[in-house]
Amino acid sequence: MRLLVSCRILPWRRDFSSTARRRVIRDISELPDRVRPSYVQRPTNTLLSLQWPSPPRNILITKKKRTPGITNSLIEYSTHLSTTYPSINVIVEPESADEIHERVSFPVYTYQRPEHGNASPEHLSDKTDLVCTLGGDGTILRASSLFSHATSVPPILSFAMGTIGFLGEWKFKEYKRAFREVYMSGASDAYAKLEDPEVDHRSFPPASPDDPLDKPLSYADIRGKTMGANRTARILLRNRLKVGVFGPDGSRMNSLPESGDTYALNEVIIHRGSSPHLKIIDVFVGGRFLTEAVADGVIISSPTGSTAYSLSSGGSIVHPLVPSLLLTPICPRSLSFRPLVLPAETPITLRLGEKNRGREVEVSIDGKRISEKIGVGMEVRVLGENVKSEDGEWCGGVPSIVRGVNGLEDKEDDHWVGGLNALLKFNYPFGDQDSGH
Amino acid sequence: MRLLVSCRILPWRRDFSSTARRRVIRDISELPDRVRPSYVQRPTNTLLSLQWPSPPRNILITKKKRTPGITNSLIEYSTHLSTTYPSINVIVEPESADEIHERVSFPVYTYQRPEHGNASPEHLSDKTDLVCTLGGDGTILRASSLFSHATSVPPILSFAMGTIGFLGEWKFKEYKRAFREVYMSGASDAYAKLEDPEVDHRSFPPASPDDPLDKPLSYADIRGKTMGANRTARILLRNRLKVGVFGPDGSRMNSLPESGDTYALNEVIIHRGSSPHLKIIDVFVGGRFLTEAVADGVIISSPTGSTAYSLSSGGSIVHPLVPSLLLTPICPRSLSFRPLVLPAETPITLRLGEKNRGREVEVSIDGKRISEKIGVGMEVRVLGENVKSEDGEWCGGVPSIVRGVNGLEDKEDDHWVGGLNALLKFNYPFGDQDSGH
Amino acid sequence: MRLLVSCRILPWRRDFSSTARRRVIRDISELPDRVRPSYVQRPTNTLLSLQWPSPPRNILITKKKRTPGITNSLIEYSTHLSTTYPSINVIVEPESADEIHERVSFPVYTYQRPEHGNASPEHLSDKTDLVCTLGGDGTILRASSLFSHATSVPPILSFAMGTIGFLGEWKFKEYKRAFREVYMSGASDAYAKLEDPEVDHRSFPPASPDDPLDKPLSYADIRGKTMGANRTARILLRNRLKVGVFGPDGSRMNSLPESGDTYALNEVIIHRGSSPHLKIIDVFVGGRFLTEAVADGVIISSPTGSTAYSLSSGGSIVHPLVPSLLLTPICPRSLSFRPLVLPAETPITLRLGEKNRGREVEVSIDGKRISEKIGVGMEVRVLGENVKSEDGEWCGGVPSIVRGVNGLEDKEDDHWVGGLNALLKFNYPFGDQDSGH
Amino acid sequence: MRLLVSCRILPWRRDFSSTARRRVIRDISELPDRVRPSYVQRPTNTLLSLQWPSPPRNILITKKKRTPGITNSLIEYSTHLSTTYPSINVIVEPESADEIHERVSFPVYTYQRPEHGNASPEHLSDKTDLVCTLGGDGTILRASSLFSHATSVPPILSFAMGTIGFLGEWKFKEYKRAFREVYMSGASDAYAKLEDPEVDHRSFPPASPDDPLDKPLSYADIRGKTMGANRTARILLRNRLKVGVFGPDGSRMNSLPESGDTYALNEVIIHRGSSPHLKIIDVFVGGRFLTEAVADGVIISSPTGSTAYSLSSGGSIVHPLVPSLLLTPICPRSLSFRPLVLPAETPITLRLGEKNRGREVEVSIDGKRISEKIGVGMEVRVLGENVKSEDGEWCGGVPSIVRGVNGLEDKEDDHWVGGLNALLKFNYPFGDQDSGH
Ligand SMILES: NC(=O)C1=CN([C@@H]2O[C@H](COP(=O)(O)OP(=O)(O)OC[C@H]3O[C@@H](n4cnc5c(N)ncnc54)[C@H](O)[C@@H]3O)[C@@H](O)[C@H]2O)C=CC1
Ligand SMILES: NC(=O)C1=CN([C@@H]2O[C@H](COP(=O)(O)OP(=O)(O)OC[C@H]3O[C@@H](n4cnc5c(N)ncnc54)[C@H](O)[C@@H]3O)[C@@H](O)[C@H]2O)C=CC1
Ligand SMILES: NC(=O)C1=CN([C@@H]2O[C@H](COP(=O)(O)OP(=O)(O)OC[C@H]3O[C@@H](n4cnc5c(N)ncnc54)[C@H](O)[C@@H]3O)[C@@H](O)[C@H]2O)C=CC1
Ligand SMILES: NC(=O)C1=CN([C@@H]2O[C@H](COP(=O)(O)OP(=O)(O)OC[C@H]3O[C@@H](n4cnc5c(N)ncnc54)[C@H](O)[C@@H]3O)[C@@H](O)[C@H]2O)C=CC1
Repeated sequence: MRLLVSCRILPWRRDFSSTARRRVIRDISELPDRVRPSYVQRPTNTLLSLQWPSPPRNILITKKKRTPGITNSLIEYSTHLSTTYPSINVIVEPESADEIHERVSFPVYTYQRPEHGNASPEHLSDKTDLVCTLGGDGTILRASSLFSHATSVPPILSFAMGTIGFLGEWKFKEYKRAFREVYMSGASDAYAKLEDPEVDHRSFPPASPDDPLDKPLSYADIRGKTMGANRTARILLRNRLKVGVFGPDGSRMNSLPESGDTYALNEVIIHRGSSPHLKIIDVFVGGRFLTEAVADGVIISSPTGSTAYSLSSGGSIVHPLVPSLLLTPICPRSLSFRPLVLPAETPITLRLGEKNRGREVEVSIDGKRISEKIGVGMEVRVLGENVKSEDGEWCGGVPSIVRGVNGLEDKEDDHWVGGLNALLKFNYPFGDQDSGH
Repeated sequence: MRLLVSCRILPWRRDFSSTARRRVIRDISELPDRVRPSYVQRPTNTLLSLQWPSPPRNILITKKKRTPGITNSLIEYSTHLSTTYPSINVIVEPESADEIHERVSFPVYTYQRPEHGNASPEHLSDKTDLVCTLGGDGTILRASSLFSHATSVPPILSFAMGTIGFLGEWKFKEYKRAFREVYMSGASDAYAKLEDPEVDHRSFPPASPDDPLDKPLSYADIRGKTMGANRTARILLRNRLKVGVFGPDGSRMNSLPESGDTYALNEVIIHRGSSPHLKIIDVFVGGRFLTEAVADGVIISSPTGSTAYSLSSGGSIVHPLVPSLLLTPICPRSLSFRPLVLPAETPITLRLGEKNRGREVEVSIDGKRISEKIGVGMEVRVLGENVKSEDGEWCGGVPSIVRGVNGLEDKEDDHWVGGLNALLKFNYPFGDQDSGH
Repeated sequence: MRLLVSCRILPWRRDFSSTARRRVIRDISELPDRVRPSYVQRPTNTLLSLQWPSPPRNILITKKKRTPGITNSLIEYSTHLSTTYPSINVIVEPESADEIHERVSFPVYTYQRPEHGNASPEHLSDKTDLVCTLGGDGTILRASSLFSHATSVPPILSFAMGTIGFLGEWKFKEYKRAFREVYMSGASDAYAKLEDPEVDHRSFPPASPDDPLDKPLSYADIRGKTMGANRTARILLRNRLKVGVFGPDGSRMNSLPESGDTYALNEVIIHRGSSPHLKIIDVFVGGRFLTEAVADGVIISSPTGSTAYSLSSGGSIVHPLVPSLLLTPICPRSLSFRPLVLPAETPITLRLGEKNRGREVEVSIDGKRISEKIGVGMEVRVLGENVKSEDGEWCGGVPSIVRGVNGLEDKEDDHWVGGLNALLKFNYPFGDQDSGH
Repeated sequence: MRLLVSCRILPWRRDFSSTARRRVIRDISELPDRVRPSYVQRPTNTLLSLQWPSPPRNILITKKKRTPGITNSLIEYSTHLSTTYPSINVIVEPESADEIHERVSFPVYTYQRPEHGNASPEHLSDKTDLVCTLGGDGTILRASSLFSHATSVPPILSFAMGTIGFLGEWKFKEYKRAFREVYMSGASDAYAKLEDPEVDHRSFPPASPDDPLDKPLSYADIRGKTMGANRTARILLRNRLKVGVFGPDGSRMNSLPESGDTYALNEVIIHRGSSPHLKIIDVFVGGRFLTEAVADGVIISSPTGSTAYSLSSGGSIVHPLVPSLLLTPICPRSLSFRPLVLPAETPITLRLGEKNRGREVEVSIDGKRISEKIGVGMEVRVLGENVKSEDGEWCGGVPSIVRGVNGLEDKEDDHWVGGLNALLKFNYPFGDQDSGH
């Protein structure tokens, strides 16, 4: 439906004037390969430190849908990045590319929307250094779903537009400082004097034969003031769920066979959906039958998702760093189906047995419904993602950049405790303190 | 689709031989008018006593759907009634009439299935003296929904087929004794010697000019042994909800405009249904704004329904004789939305405001989905049914015949307490008492 | 300990100067008998209207304990009453009498503190027309406990000092208007021009031979502007629990044998108290065994108490006008002990059986511990109070004066809905609306 | 009170006949030092394998209190050990030593009961190779509390007497097989032909100058059939809580200053205890203020304790292998205090602030009350125990021997899933399956 105006496909665009040349949509396949950061744990801190080997260049920016004014924010933000950090390439989603490419003075990169609803966009996970989201929790979930078949997700920096969500961290007005901290994070040699007016801010890197896009940028190239090696962005590595949905015949239903499992950030659910009747779901834990759930549905949630649907269904709040999976029933027809918290490495299977009347059920991952007809005989198989490799390296998960800078913890709030109190109104006290009664 | 083989419509059937003549399907409009019992409260008992002015004659029998063997039970049961109580007329649902009329030696009465899905069958509430259900709670709910526009529902006698439900009371094998108790309930003059072999059991009342159908039967006509005036069937009068569903333009959506409100036995719910997103529902209580529910949905339940969906959603168990309405959220996105129990006479309104993204929501009454497209702007208005008239008479509600005979309470279980323990496994003790561990 | 300085006991005080004469503590037995109001239900309103046959005269004022400044408020309030309504007699608790009698220019009445901890003060319920409380919910509970052996409790008007409680209604600064509304409530003949400076406010009624104390005051005696017959104070008649605590030998433990049952406004609880071990409590409902609770304890609560301890233990919120009793377990060792809501007229018994290890348990009524040694074999028997007599009159209960005036409902909030939202933070929405995040 | 009849103290006992000599109570200080097993993790299994370097010799057996018949079981069990495994030394608690030493033909070892209530018995943790408990969960908790100041607890083998608890695993009648499996666990060289009648079962090892007690036993010394190196006992390493209770002046209140923190297997609680009023407890997480709990109390629980008090208070069920701490309020006066699951390494502090009325509160560890007067200003500080050392070795925790043998998993139940279903009646289905309705 949407036409991808790729430079490769439409090379004549290159002949245009320099102004016009910038108003193009390019394909992400043209971008240099991704810069992979490492995550370092300091003994005194449970959060990780982000360490770029060289400055990030390819920045994906996603925005909330159907929100007035948000396109302007996208333009403002991407223009800031492109102007302040000339080596940066801006990637946006296809619709955003259509919307903004004529209104900005730099090329925007995008990707082909995959044909199969649950497939991941090609090249995206090989080219994206950093993801920035403008919106709420839903926008973060959608951004994370763009990497739902990738084992390595780029760090995500989230800006709230309007109300702050539980997963988001920064207010949009903080974007300059927040981005700079992330951009410089862990650089130990030299630093850009980024806001120095004398610096020659090249609006676009030269397209010379030895294109700088092909060799990594070095922090030494960036002139400017030192920020101190210890001031690193703080990463909360959120472990995800590996989800496979299988039909009665054993075939995969949530993705193309070659893409394998889908990763979920919050949860996967089976639910009665549009049927007004109870569903009967067999639950297996660690390969053994645990119980038959007669309920509206069942949630398998990550600790991150413990404050999402699972919370509404009566689950406990689990800190994102507890390596665990939550099994939370939705409206069970039983007085004794208490939510369970299981080790992250426990395989869980939900099977929709023969007893079910209704033909179709809802299966959703992170609030996105899996579209195929799913019914009796289906299985959802889940395993927690391992975020520490054999040799002790941190890998996998969704690296979420949280407020505060490592090295300055004492002056900062704990983001999670803050979220409980300010957003979830955890243990909100009784009384008339804020009523005009 | 189904052809109602009514005697009036197809009079030639009348000319058949007496055997054949019985194998007909007749229309309920031919039946004598309903016999309305009264319900008497004894000081020592919270349950009511059923008191027939004259023996019931028109018995509606409904059965569970899609259950093997149940048609045979229907035939067995209706044959017993027809043989033992010759003055009784058997009414069944249209499908059942098709299934059994050729296999029984008495005429079966039925009604036209209404064209509009939520309308009530014509004449049914004017002709039915007593309802018998063969099935589980779902069958009772379906039977009660046949009277969902009637202010006066006939008493319901329920037989469990297989597992006992929470609303049902008798095992099918008890049907002879159970029916007799109900049939004779409150007769104070004389009684039938019902199982006396000498009695001439007329298999069908004579179709004479002065058809006995037109004048009420008297207990004096029934020869037989006295059962004692105090042995009356025990009635639990379950108060219902009066539900109106209105579109954004104020038009009724749950029924034909002329049929007015629909009565629910368990509950009415608004639910996100097939949309994977939260719904935002404004709740008004007593005409005043109470709260904005952000949730999967909201339940308004009768005390009877407190052990149904509301229970699964975390509601308290409310005894059916507490005159109340329950407001129970389904998976609310709030830590502080505790279920509420409100006075039965409180009007409650649920309104689906503009903020909702999804176009369509599920509205279900007693587990039956209201089919019309229902969306933003819609309102569900609920009021508890009043089961005591101004002058202190018991009226309305669903008169459910519960185990035990008034006058013999001491030897009987409390049916509700029994149900909590045996069926809901209320406060089921920990330990290995029944495990083979 | 405290010496009651009663006028009868110490008649020499009468000989003092008129100033001194007022600084006395008198015994309530000297007061004229109580004026009993009636409670009228209007069809359009669930709250009752307070109707005095003649203006109230004997006003009991109780105050919160251990609260700085509250004695000054008591003096301010009682002085206002005494000055503005000369026929009013001020009753206070013995400690308050000691504290204030030298600081006010009118006599204060009080009573003998009963010797037995759980007995009621003599005469109090025969002499008190109206109770005013200065404090929070605890003060209202304590005031109500002064009438815990009386079947007819005077209306209670509550002023919050500091934070508003759930049972309290007015802020202290509203006391003039609030009291006047109550004082005049239902007077249909004539009204006092109460704040008219010309009126001769007799500071004390003359102690003539035909003491006006002996004949009821009439609204006609009170000169002033009409307030309109429809402007009546609104009464929420809170039904209480009738509680009997019995030892293993069947003897009463919560009161003197002659005082009979104790009435509770919130609840009665059995609890493990200081023992660190589970208690095992047999629960009987309607005379039949319901269940064995293995738990920290069990609460039997009135609907009023549903927002107190029962709420903290997971009970539903029940509107005070739902005639019911709540059975809520405290930390039960069972996954399936859901709170129950039972008809108000159901007798409930809790029995502490032989299986219990600990010798002693806590039994508390409205947060006040019953002091005697209570242990194995003990029984707590509870029944809801009936607030409507055979002939349809409202009686019993705790008549709580709630905000708003009958006849002006539309302009007023619903006090209960308001309390849910403003005080209990019912369904408090997520998000950062009031955070400075 | 009790006199420890130690061999060292009363040497004349040594002069007695050999029969008499055995009827002595000896002090554990005489025993050879403890044999410390290692715990090996197999990739395919989440449970650990018990591996003795040499056969265990010093076996502590504890039994339930106040239970008729249990002393006989203790005698039966200890006699079996002593007869079948001649090198084994039986250690019992002081009271048991008094009870049984005259009834058995081998010496029993015991220890001095410490004077200070919360101190640990001297030498016990240096001498005990294995703990066996005869009783229920309470007996296991008491056994574990004997090691509440030790960083290394011996493996615990638990036999249920009567009903099976959630922490216990074997029925008493299985003791022979169960003990042999534990005894031989991980022996890779040679095995005893344990039940071979030809074997000379020395009823007691000779007390020669070169006492065999002083050199470790080798599996090679035990003649008999090989059991296979893979058949090892399965260990669930339950991580504990490190608890410090501090007075307002910063002094330790739960133990002697030199013993440091106390380890809890289930939980530590602060509770209102005998006071009928709410407590106000400040909760700090990771050094930062989290919330003010207004409640009956607060529980900090290990995952093992998640099925104990925390469950009764509404907490989720957490698998013992999820490295976490639970913060569960007891009857909080808030609608929004949902239980929390935090990373095991998070320090939590509970502080009893100035606002509290009552002077004294209950602080209990594993159901045992800390006796000192504890009140305003007190702090409870908790940290999860780390069960994996820097170099990846398993250490600490309570090594609980669970059913099944490693290497034979497929034929065995999952003990935890089994416990949920059989003991906690997790998700117990509705219906009349086991009622005689
Ligand atoms: N009854 C419920 O609570 C339901 C919850 N959801 C949740 O919504 C998510 C999808 O989000 P949207 O597409 O925005 O749908 P949506 O428009 O239905 O909003 C979901 C809400 O959940 C919040 N949320 C999402 N993830 C969260 C997290 N990890 N912690 C705390 N709050 C979180 C969002 O801020 C938003 O308020 C799903 O992953 C599911 O967890 C979806 C359906 C029903
Ligand atoms: N998650 C849940 O708990 C859900 C419950 N329902 C309930 O199902 C009812 C419709 O019943 P069916 O058509 O048979 O649907 P269904 O096949 O989904 O079964 C509903 C179950 O609820 C039981 N039930 C119905 N009314 C009851 C009552 N008053 N007390 C105790 N148990 C009761 C039935 O025995 C059956 O086990 C609805 O009125 C609603 O209350 C419907 C959807 C979901
Ligand atoms: N964990 C808990 O929730 C506990 C609650 N209580 C409650 O406290 C009451 C005694 O009150 P105090 O002597 O002031 O003790 P308190 O100092 O322990 O305070 C009890 C709290 O409950 C509130 N409260 C009392 N009655 C209420 C009602 N009907 N609805 C809503 N809130 C109410 C009060 O405003 C106060 O905040 C008892 O009747 C019992 O209901 C007592 C002990 C523990
Ligand atoms: N309301 C409640 O649930 C209370 C629970 N307790 C629990 O009791 C424990 C002390 O036990 P006892 O001295 O025997 O006291 P107890 O005689 O009060 O019995 C406690 C009960 O909890 C069970 N239990 C203990 N630990 C368990 C675990 N980890 N998982 C599942 N069930 C468990 C026992 O089998 C027993 O049924 C405490 O650690 C505390 O967890 C103590 C007081 C109240």
